[in-house]
Amino acid sequence: MNQTIESILNHRSIRSYSDQPIEEKQLDAILQCAQAAPSSINGQQMSVIVIKNADTKQQLADLAGGQRWIAQAPIFLIFVADFYRAKLAADKAGEELVIPSNMEGTLVGSIDVGLAMGNTIAAAESLGLGTVCIGGIRKNPTALIELLDLPEYVYPMVGLCVGHINEEKKPEKKPRMPKEAVLHAETYNRELEEHISAYDKVIYDYMSSREDGQDPHDWSHFIASVYKFVYFPEVSESLRKQKFECK
Amino acid sequence: MNQTIESILNHRSIRSYSDQPIEEKQLDAILQCAQAAPSSINGQQMSVIVIKNADTKQQLADLAGGQRWIAQAPIFLIFVADFYRAKLAADKAGEELVIPSNMEGTLVGSIDVGLAMGNTIAAAESLGLGTVCIGGIRKNPTALIELLDLPEYVYPMVGLCVGHINEEKKPEKKPRMPKEAVLHAETYNRELEEHISAYDKVIYDYMSSREDGQDPHDWSHFIASVYKFVYFPEVSESLRKQKFECK
Repeated sequence: MNQTIESILNHRSIRSYSDQPIEEKQLDAILQCAQAAPSSINGQQMSVIVIKNADTKQQLADLAGGQRWIAQAPIFLIFVADFYRAKLAADKAGEELVIPSNMEGTLVGSIDVGLAMGNTIAAAESLGLGTVCIGGIRKNPTALIELLDLPEYVYPMVGLCVGHINEEKKPEKKPRMPKEAVLHAETYNRELEEHISAYDKVIYDYMSSREDGQDPHDWSHFIASVYKFVYFPEVSESLRKQKFECK
Repeated sequence: MNQTIESILNHRSIRSYSDQPIEEKQLDAILQCAQAAPSSINGQQMSVIVIKNADTKQQLADLAGGQRWIAQAPIFLIFVADFYRAKLAADKAGEELVIPSNMEGTLVGSIDVGLAMGNTIAAAESLGLGTVCIGGIRKNPTALIELLDLPEYVYPMVGLCVGHINEEKKPEKKPRMPKEAVLHAETYNRELEEHISAYDKVIYDYMSSREDGQDPHDWSHFIASVYKFVYFPEVSESLRKQKFECK
């Protein structure tokens, strides 16, 4: 064990921040870590839009469905899948840019975003800061694309609040799925019902007793209730409009 | 600066490993970090297939287009987007599982994979180990899905070699795009041509002089040459076969 692993294992989502601002040199270090992540063919298919403006944060909080911690956090980062630089490169070389229109392009862009955001979270938490990922930026993508002036070949994948932790409202660590259900030796193990039942009990107990808002449900019923419909119906069309044609 | 940030900023892709095996307790810590990553709605939409078997690694090296470092690394991890547990949860709750068939599901799965892999890389490198991401596992996904016995609702996104670094062949750090081209304040800055030209020169010099294989090209021409065609043509169809219907 070392500082890095301890910090990563101590991760929790922070939705309440103190008033203390983030120092510029801390923000620089965090964003340098975002850029240091590996990327497919060194294409660096991601960008970060750094939002500090209070009005913009409030608008984004509203667009994400009323997530007030976006407005409260001193910094809100929006990670976008980005083939706009690749488009400029293709134009410069006199070639057609084909890959973003194919599913391969969407995978490359979203995995690059995940890798960069993973580094960002690890770096921020190593400095004692708190973060929470915001998938809700995909709730109203068309309005958000307009607000941030995102060009074609760029798509907003996920947001990240960053701030100093309000220690009074620091949540407990949420238990993860048993490792036997997630880590597979050599081939995929399909015998998972028992592990899921065990985890259902763990999550039910956690949600029934946690101090920051009790909401008793088990994992299976919660997941099933979210995934039974398309909760962000604009995603498909707005991807295609941004030239991620998902062929 | 601290240990975590220093380690992240020191990242490079390692394709040559010593014979030293990975200790089980190190592997456990690394994989625990993979699981500790945040995930959309705590759905934990990723799994890791841990490959140690020499024959399987050789087969995977061949399927990825002859990437011999997959066979050489003591551990090869395959990160899969995973809604199979969500399917079991939906069945248990008597609900239909809709989201994997929509583009939203593919985004959630691939971002979760990126986040988990980001943690895994950060943890491995903090222990002094070397890694390299292998997008080439999407070159022959149908054969790979069969080899690993991946069920429907599971898709192989990216691989990761992990091993002790062969210090004699440790590469230099590859320079990243100027931050002005990647980090945007408040809205997207489209004036990027100058930064890309500057980076083209940096990469041309790096590729012309690096000790581990000289291959002079600039960034724009390389990116344009890769992205002018669909280099992994099986991805779209195999995604759909695994029930990621990309609607």
